[in-house]
Amino acid sequence: MTAWEENVLKVVPYVPGEQPKEKDIIKLNTNENPYPPSPKVDEVIRNFSVGNLRKYPDPEATDLVEALAQRYHMPKDQIFVGVGSDDVLAMSFLTFFHGKKPILFPDITYSFYDVWANEFEIPFETRALNENFEIKKEDYFCENGGIVIPNPNAPTGLACPVSELEEIVAKNPSSVVIIDEAYGDFNGESMLPLVDKYDNLLVTMTFSKSRSLAGSRIGFAFGSKKLISYLLDVKYSFNSYTMDSLTIQIGKASLEDEAYFRAKVNEVMETREWTKKELEKLGFSFPDSKTNFIFAKHESAKAEDIFEYLKSKKIYVRYFKRPRIDNYLRISIGTKEEMEALVAELKAYL
Amino acid sequence: MTAWEENVLKVVPYVPGEQPKEKDIIKLNTNENPYPPSPKVDEVIRNFSVGNLRKYPDPEATDLVEALAQRYHMPKDQIFVGVGSDDVLAMSFLTFFHGKKPILFPDITYSFYDVWANEFEIPFETRALNENFEIKKEDYFCENGGIVIPNPNAPTGLACPVSELEEIVAKNPSSVVIIDEAYGDFNGESMLPLVDKYDNLLVTMTFSKSRSLAGSRIGFAFGSKKLISYLLDVKYSFNSYTMDSLTIQIGKASLEDEAYFRAKVNEVMETREWTKKELEKLGFSFPDSKTNFIFAKHESAKAEDIFEYLKSKKIYVRYFKRPRIDNYLRISIGTKEEMEALVAELKAYL
Repeated sequence: MTAWEENVLKVVPYVPGEQPKEKDIIKLNTNENPYPPSPKVDEVIRNFSVGNLRKYPDPEATDLVEALAQRYHMPKDQIFVGVGSDDVLAMSFLTFFHGKKPILFPDITYSFYDVWANEFEIPFETRALNENFEIKKEDYFCENGGIVIPNPNAPTGLACPVSELEEIVAKNPSSVVIIDEAYGDFNGESMLPLVDKYDNLLVTMTFSKSRSLAGSRIGFAFGSKKLISYLLDVKYSFNSYTMDSLTIQIGKASLEDEAYFRAKVNEVMETREWTKKELEKLGFSFPDSKTNFIFAKHESAKAEDIFEYLKSKKIYVRYFKRPRIDNYLRISIGTKEEMEALVAELKAYL
Repeated sequence: MTAWEENVLKVVPYVPGEQPKEKDIIKLNTNENPYPPSPKVDEVIRNFSVGNLRKYPDPEATDLVEALAQRYHMPKDQIFVGVGSDDVLAMSFLTFFHGKKPILFPDITYSFYDVWANEFEIPFETRALNENFEIKKEDYFCENGGIVIPNPNAPTGLACPVSELEEIVAKNPSSVVIIDEAYGDFNGESMLPLVDKYDNLLVTMTFSKSRSLAGSRIGFAFGSKKLISYLLDVKYSFNSYTMDSLTIQIGKASLEDEAYFRAKVNEVMETREWTKKELEKLGFSFPDSKTNFIFAKHESAKAEDIFEYLKSKKIYVRYFKRPRIDNYLRISIGTKEEMEALVAELKAYL
């Protein structure tokens, strides 16, 4: 080790799902939406004047923030935007989890949480989901430096009732509680209406899943004015211009096409329910997903073997070699045709 | 203060130059390029297939990294890309300045350095430029936790000879030395050829100035394999997908039009030299700028007064109310016509 390496922050990074470069594959491994974004997004790109790019973007991303304000009926100063909800969450960890007490999150959850905690040297403890992969709210009724819970949870797909999450927020006035609703649009309820009741509640969302814009990197959050103001200070201390000019307009255009959004979310949910039935027939069981993926295990076949078989057939799903979940597959919901192809391959294999 | 606020990281953010929303202004306040980006960028946007956006971008931004590798004759594993050079620098501060000794940078310099140091709780000390705004290399021949120097420096516009910076790098094998070449394309020399000689040298660059792509947010860095690998680990621990799909292609297209790039950089430099002569005639003096801006003071008129006057005439320049430089204006180089308008207004005022 050379001398300068002593000053280096050493971390083990998050490993995202594979982005295979081959064509003609069925990609059900990173919870992307199978449909393209709204045609209004296409229109914005077609009409974008490239000369604008010579100038810095609006650091406040006003056009996007205003569109979010209108869509979600929230004042602008209660909205934060970032480069995907990963950026929003990273900034939030850095901002709100700066105490000495450990932050809490479930043992089975989005695997970036412990990575951020390590990166920012935040002490953390996990709380075990019960045997049905449910959150036990009482686990979070204790001293802590902050709480982060995804709802619905990933990779389980299970949603926790908003009333239970509200109890967690209410019992923790000394901590910021982040509810990560990356998959919230596929669920029936949101914590959003509660941000005016609890000034310690931050709700994060993304354009990556329900809005088919994973490639554009847009995430956002709602919270009390005070919470958002702290978050903005930290963000502006990191990078003044995180959202590029074109992306700001892409996000705005997507928000302006509510009909398309609703239609595509509904299609994904219908395909999900169809897929659940087919998987059950084949001997799979799974928590009742409220997301755009299904977290399934088979009654006899090993998850890892199924994963490898599907990959050989150019169908990519996600497999996590981790305690408690190493016999599960996380299968994103594709188009009906893609899910039919998946079911056919599973039949062939089993 | 409510209880959760005790766990909040409290910072005073960087304040970027104004981005006025009015039209018909002459904007010489944020060192943007007056010319649009390459027509090849326009072509890429026109031909971009919006359906791609439903998928996550390539986390390694391979197309952009390969184009940089080709343009700069560097292996891919010695290249890092980020959301503007602010993102690259923020990640670098977080990665390389994790020791207990203070990092060093000039007292008059890019005003984001101390903001990042505060955000990441990095101890720092500044070293005073001499009365001609020059860096004294000996100031950096001492124990430290890291060094960051922009070359050319901002807002002074002065370049330090590469040979002197090399001495600083050579005398500091225990520290990472970052040379921030945001304005390097307007200067004659670069530290780039030295990254293979010194494994502790990181050279950062941006598409925002010389490539007219401030609105797209693309920055990059070159360093030893080891340095880049540490930086990537921290970046992947923050956000897997920082560069969006469209921006990756925009950056690539810009790099593929070397002729346009050269032509526009030359135009800016010619206009800069013309502007220097005109400003001298009007009683201004300034360090000999090797950037796309001039840092000027007048023999009798106060900088702040000139700033206010120009603003009233819809010409925006940058004024920093800070010790040692509070009688200077930083004037970005616009088109010849814009600089003629500036000179005419200055004549009218003086």
